[in-house]
Amino acid sequence: MAKTGVIGAGSWGTALALVLHQNGHEVTLWSHSEASVKSLLKERELPGKLPGVKIPEEIQITGDLEQAIRGMDMLVLAVPSACIRSTARNMSPFVADGQLIVCVSKGIEESTLKIMTEVIEDEIPNCRAAVLSGPSHAEEVSRGLPTTVVAGAHDRETAEYIQNLFMSRVFRVYTSPDMLGIELGGALKNVIALAAGIADGLGYGDNTKAALITRGIAEMSRIGTAMGGRQETFNGLSGIGDLIVTCASVHSRNRKAGYLMGQGRSMQEAMDEVKMVVEGVYSAKAAMALARKYQIEIPIIEQVNKVLFENKSPKEAVSELMLRDKKIENSQLPWE
Amino acid sequence: MAKTGVIGAGSWGTALALVLHQNGHEVTLWSHSEASVKSLLKERELPGKLPGVKIPEEIQITGDLEQAIRGMDMLVLAVPSACIRSTARNMSPFVADGQLIVCVSKGIEESTLKIMTEVIEDEIPNCRAAVLSGPSHAEEVSRGLPTTVVAGAHDRETAEYIQNLFMSRVFRVYTSPDMLGIELGGALKNVIALAAGIADGLGYGDNTKAALITRGIAEMSRIGTAMGGRQETFNGLSGIGDLIVTCASVHSRNRKAGYLMGQGRSMQEAMDEVKMVVEGVYSAKAAMALARKYQIEIPIIEQVNKVLFENKSPKEAVSELMLRDKKIENSQLPWE
Repeated sequence: MAKTGVIGAGSWGTALALVLHQNGHEVTLWSHSEASVKSLLKERELPGKLPGVKIPEEIQITGDLEQAIRGMDMLVLAVPSACIRSTARNMSPFVADGQLIVCVSKGIEESTLKIMTEVIEDEIPNCRAAVLSGPSHAEEVSRGLPTTVVAGAHDRETAEYIQNLFMSRVFRVYTSPDMLGIELGGALKNVIALAAGIADGLGYGDNTKAALITRGIAEMSRIGTAMGGRQETFNGLSGIGDLIVTCASVHSRNRKAGYLMGQGRSMQEAMDEVKMVVEGVYSAKAAMALARKYQIEIPIIEQVNKVLFENKSPKEAVSELMLRDKKIENSQLPWE
Repeated sequence: MAKTGVIGAGSWGTALALVLHQNGHEVTLWSHSEASVKSLLKERELPGKLPGVKIPEEIQITGDLEQAIRGMDMLVLAVPSACIRSTARNMSPFVADGQLIVCVSKGIEESTLKIMTEVIEDEIPNCRAAVLSGPSHAEEVSRGLPTTVVAGAHDRETAEYIQNLFMSRVFRVYTSPDMLGIELGGALKNVIALAAGIADGLGYGDNTKAALITRGIAEMSRIGTAMGGRQETFNGLSGIGDLIVTCASVHSRNRKAGYLMGQGRSMQEAMDEVKMVVEGVYSAKAAMALARKYQIEIPIIEQVNKVLFENKSPKEAVSELMLRDKKIENSQLPWE
């Protein structure tokens, strides 16, 4: 039995707290908001986000960051990606040398183009950062539906430790050394989900969406491998797997925002209607910056950027994608 | 403008005939059934399969195989995979040396473990065989929804010729030299679609399905690359792209049959209820034979076979997949 602290009591943090609890570990769940701590203590439920899922009394709820960190064998960091740097900074004084922090937030910091574990290591240089990612809607995990994810760490022992703590009959954990590939997949998929949503909003079908997913993961891989990530990772659970789940989901905010734009709303109108942060909008910019830096062709992500920031009509954007030069599917393959 | 003959007037053959016609080519569409020729000539529609889609008068309809073949610049072979050998044998006397036959049927011949172009080359050794495949529901193609596919041929010129004939504003064609990889992807995907259907029938969610698709394409790739296909192809439109479309579709017979089994029907009951050939059932056997031949681990396909042919309960099969040894996601990747 391990002692674990989950930093962030949104739906994903809470779902992972439940997995750890069900596996017999001691869990402390931290929220930044006093109101939410009160409500969690009183209701033992996450209203609106994980309705009907009870949070057992054995899971400690706290608003005290120190309490959630000190003496823990593993910390899970599950705050929105835009809050990772500030939260890590606040955590820093309480984190022991070599203490394990598993990041489950997905994003690229816009100003620095850093992935989340790099941001964490910036702010808490003495910690041991790792990641957990894969196709995993929190609602489904909290209801015990079979789910697979991948745990990435700098060293094999750490990855296997995370695997041991999380793995159960319904939550299967693979290990991987490719933290960079895992994190880039999670961040960049939101841009392709915007494109998939746009296609849905235009009334296009499954053929179009499958094409966008397939050519989209190719663009993600091109950026990711240029940065040092591994192609195999983009072919895996945290790459294509997570992309598939996000593009299929009616719950995805990114897909939803894209859908509204496909139906004719502007980016701002779509954001207002979704009422939550649409991470793909920021990742789209970051992806363009990365593509420029590494001189990579990313036609889908480029068209998404034009729709988002240059008022290009979605229909024109798709039509431009269809009418590009006649291409070889993969220019690496030799002819006879 | 080219002269083209489409052999097989099912929904896919007809949809491709429409694409060629819209691109300004001369098209002759052949059906094996006298009744269907009569009905097509009278109704100019494919009732039940492509409802509401008019087949223009300029598309010649015929039951005369010779007429559909002689003098054509390109033939498209679109009969069910189980009829490929007998149809190719019937075509053989009329096919000129080097005449181009683009196969759009997907399957592995059970008795020989050959892919469809190998079967065609067996029966018509003097032809030039090629393939066209990708995420492409016929109904969506016939309605002009944006679709992407890949044309595979032994030589680049042939692939580019096919690309030129098919490519349009809504039908984007890539080229590839990897015919084997393209064909294996199309055939093996039906087995994974059965697994995805089973998971849906058991009431599992998007997480489970995305995991099955991701780990499923990994199994398909392992078989395919062992046989000489290219990993890049399994990452492409005819691999993961087609798999995504098939697993997402409520129309896929394979997914539907799996769904019924997930709900408790036996294989025979499911087949009776679907009322059409469920290709994945045959491909599942072929895939097992190939895995044995090349000594490859394919846990998902193995469990599908057990559900199909050994009356194993689907729930137990999934639970066994979840509880396998703790694994590294990709054993090729190095740790620091």
